[in-house]
Amino acid sequence: MSTNKILKVVIFGATGFTGEKLVELLLKHPSVRITYLSAKIEKDCYYSDLFPKFKGKIDLICEKPNIKKAKNLGDIFFLALPHTVSMRIVPYLLEEDKKVIDLSADYRLKNTKLYKEYYKINHTDKRNLKKATYGLVEFFKNKIKESKLIANPGCYPISTILPLAPLLKEDLIDPEIIIDAKSSITGAGRKPAVEYHYSNISNNLWAYKPFIHQHTPEIVEVLKRISNNKEIKLNFIPHVVGIEVGIYSTIHINFKRRMTTKSLIGIYNKYYKTSPFVRVRVSLPKLKDVTGTNFCDIGFYIDKSRKRAVICSCIDNLIKGASGNAIQNMNVMCGFKETEGLL
Amino acid sequence: MSTNKILKVVIFGATGFTGEKLVELLLKHPSVRITYLSAKIEKDCYYSDLFPKFKGKIDLICEKPNIKKAKNLGDIFFLALPHTVSMRIVPYLLEEDKKVIDLSADYRLKNTKLYKEYYKINHTDKRNLKKATYGLVEFFKNKIKESKLIANPGCYPISTILPLAPLLKEDLIDPEIIIDAKSSITGAGRKPAVEYHYSNISNNLWAYKPFIHQHTPEIVEVLKRISNNKEIKLNFIPHVVGIEVGIYSTIHINFKRRMTTKSLIGIYNKYYKTSPFVRVRVSLPKLKDVTGTNFCDIGFYIDKSRKRAVICSCIDNLIKGASGNAIQNMNVMCGFKETEGLL
Amino acid sequence: MSTNKILKVVIFGATGFTGEKLVELLLKHPSVRITYLSAKIEKDCYYSDLFPKFKGKIDLICEKPNIKKAKNLGDIFFLALPHTVSMRIVPYLLEEDKKVIDLSADYRLKNTKLYKEYYKINHTDKRNLKKATYGLVEFFKNKIKESKLIANPGCYPISTILPLAPLLKEDLIDPEIIIDAKSSITGAGRKPAVEYHYSNISNNLWAYKPFIHQHTPEIVEVLKRISNNKEIKLNFIPHVVGIEVGIYSTIHINFKRRMTTKSLIGIYNKYYKTSPFVRVRVSLPKLKDVTGTNFCDIGFYIDKSRKRAVICSCIDNLIKGASGNAIQNMNVMCGFKETEGLL
Amino acid sequence: MSTNKILKVVIFGATGFTGEKLVELLLKHPSVRITYLSAKIEKDCYYSDLFPKFKGKIDLICEKPNIKKAKNLGDIFFLALPHTVSMRIVPYLLEEDKKVIDLSADYRLKNTKLYKEYYKINHTDKRNLKKATYGLVEFFKNKIKESKLIANPGCYPISTILPLAPLLKEDLIDPEIIIDAKSSITGAGRKPAVEYHYSNISNNLWAYKPFIHQHTPEIVEVLKRISNNKEIKLNFIPHVVGIEVGIYSTIHINFKRRMTTKSLIGIYNKYYKTSPFVRVRVSLPKLKDVTGTNFCDIGFYIDKSRKRAVICSCIDNLIKGASGNAIQNMNVMCGFKETEGLL
Repeated sequence: MSTNKILKVVIFGATGFTGEKLVELLLKHPSVRITYLSAKIEKDCYYSDLFPKFKGKIDLICEKPNIKKAKNLGDIFFLALPHTVSMRIVPYLLEEDKKVIDLSADYRLKNTKLYKEYYKINHTDKRNLKKATYGLVEFFKNKIKESKLIANPGCYPISTILPLAPLLKEDLIDPEIIIDAKSSITGAGRKPAVEYHYSNISNNLWAYKPFIHQHTPEIVEVLKRISNNKEIKLNFIPHVVGIEVGIYSTIHINFKRRMTTKSLIGIYNKYYKTSPFVRVRVSLPKLKDVTGTNFCDIGFYIDKSRKRAVICSCIDNLIKGASGNAIQNMNVMCGFKETEGLL
Repeated sequence: MSTNKILKVVIFGATGFTGEKLVELLLKHPSVRITYLSAKIEKDCYYSDLFPKFKGKIDLICEKPNIKKAKNLGDIFFLALPHTVSMRIVPYLLEEDKKVIDLSADYRLKNTKLYKEYYKINHTDKRNLKKATYGLVEFFKNKIKESKLIANPGCYPISTILPLAPLLKEDLIDPEIIIDAKSSITGAGRKPAVEYHYSNISNNLWAYKPFIHQHTPEIVEVLKRISNNKEIKLNFIPHVVGIEVGIYSTIHINFKRRMTTKSLIGIYNKYYKTSPFVRVRVSLPKLKDVTGTNFCDIGFYIDKSRKRAVICSCIDNLIKGASGNAIQNMNVMCGFKETEGLL
Repeated sequence: MSTNKILKVVIFGATGFTGEKLVELLLKHPSVRITYLSAKIEKDCYYSDLFPKFKGKIDLICEKPNIKKAKNLGDIFFLALPHTVSMRIVPYLLEEDKKVIDLSADYRLKNTKLYKEYYKINHTDKRNLKKATYGLVEFFKNKIKESKLIANPGCYPISTILPLAPLLKEDLIDPEIIIDAKSSITGAGRKPAVEYHYSNISNNLWAYKPFIHQHTPEIVEVLKRISNNKEIKLNFIPHVVGIEVGIYSTIHINFKRRMTTKSLIGIYNKYYKTSPFVRVRVSLPKLKDVTGTNFCDIGFYIDKSRKRAVICSCIDNLIKGASGNAIQNMNVMCGFKETEGLL
Repeated sequence: MSTNKILKVVIFGATGFTGEKLVELLLKHPSVRITYLSAKIEKDCYYSDLFPKFKGKIDLICEKPNIKKAKNLGDIFFLALPHTVSMRIVPYLLEEDKKVIDLSADYRLKNTKLYKEYYKINHTDKRNLKKATYGLVEFFKNKIKESKLIANPGCYPISTILPLAPLLKEDLIDPEIIIDAKSSITGAGRKPAVEYHYSNISNNLWAYKPFIHQHTPEIVEVLKRISNNKEIKLNFIPHVVGIEVGIYSTIHINFKRRMTTKSLIGIYNKYYKTSPFVRVRVSLPKLKDVTGTNFCDIGFYIDKSRKRAVICSCIDNLIKGASGNAIQNMNVMCGFKETEGLL
């Protein structure tokens, strides 16, 4: 199943939450070796001095970014960078015939007008954008196998496309969809802001960017692609909640026709019975069931009297919502078992 | 403003979360004195031995319930009891011409069929149920003034009726309403269950009792009463979230006609400009802004393109959602200033 | 008990944790009115825009500091400022014959050499330093009554001097004292640093600045003053712990002679029976018993076989450890009841 | 390195915190298979119905304990049972020539008088107690290799013996030792008690069982054995702190002679340079650096002026403090690599 050769892995942006989680997960992966770590830091230093939890596990220096040096050290490149930075680096890496998994938003939206509208900047690498594959293994596995550039999905999109895609593809639900999502603050990145001070987050909870969050067009574009362009009116309302990790998405929908628990389970099984990281259940999932894992748990409850249902999904936002999913992509791209290093 | 005479207060159920919070708040109230505390305990003992935080503040014994004794000691009775227990005590207290504020569910629903459906028991005090006043001061102040028996509302109903009632009364929104509510676990009471173990709650989050929570008929019945029987299709999806205190309700609605931020603020001001505990704002509220207070903060965001909006409200579930609101009722019943002891 | 005239209060540094808590507490004080708030902010704005929880409670503008303006508006000045800033402002205020309560470290240490050693700067107001009174009402009440300048103690000193002073004054314990203190991160102030990011604090715990924390000389100096210069070898080891609020100090001591629970309770009662905010108990206190209050709870356990004991004390670090204690000082300075606005 | 044969593992007490963690860790171990799970439950059911996080990972039934059945299914038995229960089962398993790792306290103390004093019951299996090996691989590796019965150490003992043993063995410190330990509540087991309710633990902190905790004689007995009977006066003061997982032990000691950072590091390296799970550092460790791992991090700070030091150690109390350490023992007993399945 796995190749004999150890894959050499480079990580750009190794000090953010997703970069740190990539290191943690890749260190458990039997078929790869991290060969280069970089981040926007003041001074090169041992990675384990920045994150003492890695003492005895990795003895690499974390360096200021040096692409020329990095390109000789890696077979595959994880870009855990802010959006707009990735699209400056990707063209160079692809020219060097490297595999790239980009965790930023730069290659997720095919529609560059929407990219500009939501990210406030022109897209500068439209050529590679066309070639980029959206890294949702559960739906695009064959494309991912042959792709050189993966746009790793956003955390909210992963937690919402997985429960919604089968329902849309089967034309089961009305276009008006409400997603009430709750996320830990790690989704916002590791920044030195009073806003993220322990005291402001702990025991707090609030909605933000209602209808206008930048993941909204990504969810819509990908759901349309999967569902052969079904009409969607998405109301996406994200919340920050004072918990350490995770996203819990509560999706409020209306069925076009009467559905039973059994028929709905049947639909989900049709799509996910061979997906090792999607677990479907009749009851409503709890966030902590997926904490620390690459699973997406999906559960639901149907109010039969009125053809309504609530679908709940949860993920660890740094694993299935980011770095774990990125490694799942790597596994598929590189011919490893899909679950390698992730169970 | 306040009467000269000190009001004597009795609390039944003094060791639950709402009973404890009643004691805490009433100790700060300048016009009352707690004279009797009881709870279902093994052995009578000092209340401050059960809750050392009250040492030096109150030196009452907490006793096993003795109504005969209690009736001579109190002018007003707070029942912080499980439902079904209250309706066994209330008839006796009313006969003695006492004022009663019941924090259980027993006198909230006028429809006894729904009571039986949701609480799984027949109502045994229909006579007094008819006389009971729903204790939402913001809408029923005059009735409360003259009432002897107050049904203090449920925590979810308070946090959702306040933002919804003006919109329904003004006939502004479609009947299909989705409430996605998030609550701390204290709402479930203080019980010795593994389910409530620190490890099961901390950093966890999940939806429960979707569409079927017992507060659903209460919200619907009261909203209909306030809005002259407007049609309502309520989808109420509560969640438990691993935070210490509070309820955050995210309400997803559709306007019947185009609304602007200004016009909506206008509507809310019309109803709440004289309500000291409702604060309306243009931005979305944060839960911690109301923690430890009797405020209900309401904010909203309108998606003008599609006549949709999200309305968010938050309360401290043990204060405005229970004991603080009960004291607000007491203030109105007893001729104190509405905010006495609560600011 | 309270004067008829409403006292006008000015707060410098109103946006830090202690400034915010001062506002919260002073708003509940029946005999004062906040007249001026300032902080190092970009642009003047309503204080309740910075802290929406104060909406409807205070409608002052928070301004960039303007001492000239402030001096006409206040009878008493709370300086919730970083150390070194206070000693630049205090001389001016005292010249204007204002009362000043300084929450910084600038006037706590009489020994200016130690001030320089621990705060890395020369003291520039030695004249007023001599006149400053250490604001521990439990021991210096009479001096505080007549003082114009109060050095409000550090949070760790308050939580450790109160349990230790009686033992030293009565010559009961060996000089070698170990204090193992645990504090919430709010003690470090509200700064935009990655170090204080929610993810770095939540569920974390670590010791820092062992033996060398800047509160060490303050504890020693004040304990010596109270105990007529008893010898002290203090080992002070503070910890940060991922909780919202509070300090829990565990003090490890050796008695010079056999003590019983009864005799030790007797000693504490001798010193604190008239102190409304010190509660002594036989059992070990829990932090949450004092959260949100101005109490310092002290408990202990004696290992009789070896003349050793552990004394535990706890406070809310922002109330008894800072702003509440400052108001207690104000009450004493201004002739109010000591507990006014604090119970 | 690892044997070809898959080891069959049985777990008794699979629903407690340590049992659950054993399952989680053993599922990642490449050389074992869990064959039988039991616990004191009402009705046999799928283990993954009790813990939905294991869905798709294990499909065993969790049964009511049946030793006869279990004995045919396992090569090695983990007993994650309350003390006193283990010593009723162990004799039977040893007669059947099974390997046993007992996570209870039953085989830790060689001194049965102390067992009775601290656990309030007579020891009923003194014969096997003599043969039991204390499962601290870092000091008893050779004995563990040949043992059939391992007494897996208590969580506090692991976190304190590791930092102290080298210092005692080298005769570097005074006998008077103070351990101020802080633990998450999971150490107390999963019981349906109000005491462990989320609200009572979250943001709380308190000392308990000072000097008299049942782990005290275990720490002393093992330290004496390791140090050739050096004199020890242990003052062990544990605390509960409102965090999810972990133990942080702050150890206050006096050196017999002047030590430098370098010489102390040298001592620790002498003992732990070949121990894969002990990491020694110059700075003070943070709890989260070991969360989710089998590491014990040790750091220290020396106050040279007075020959004093503070040594801090931290572990994940359910991994290195219980189940991870138990698996480390299994690895050594069964000829696997010591770190197998644990990195």
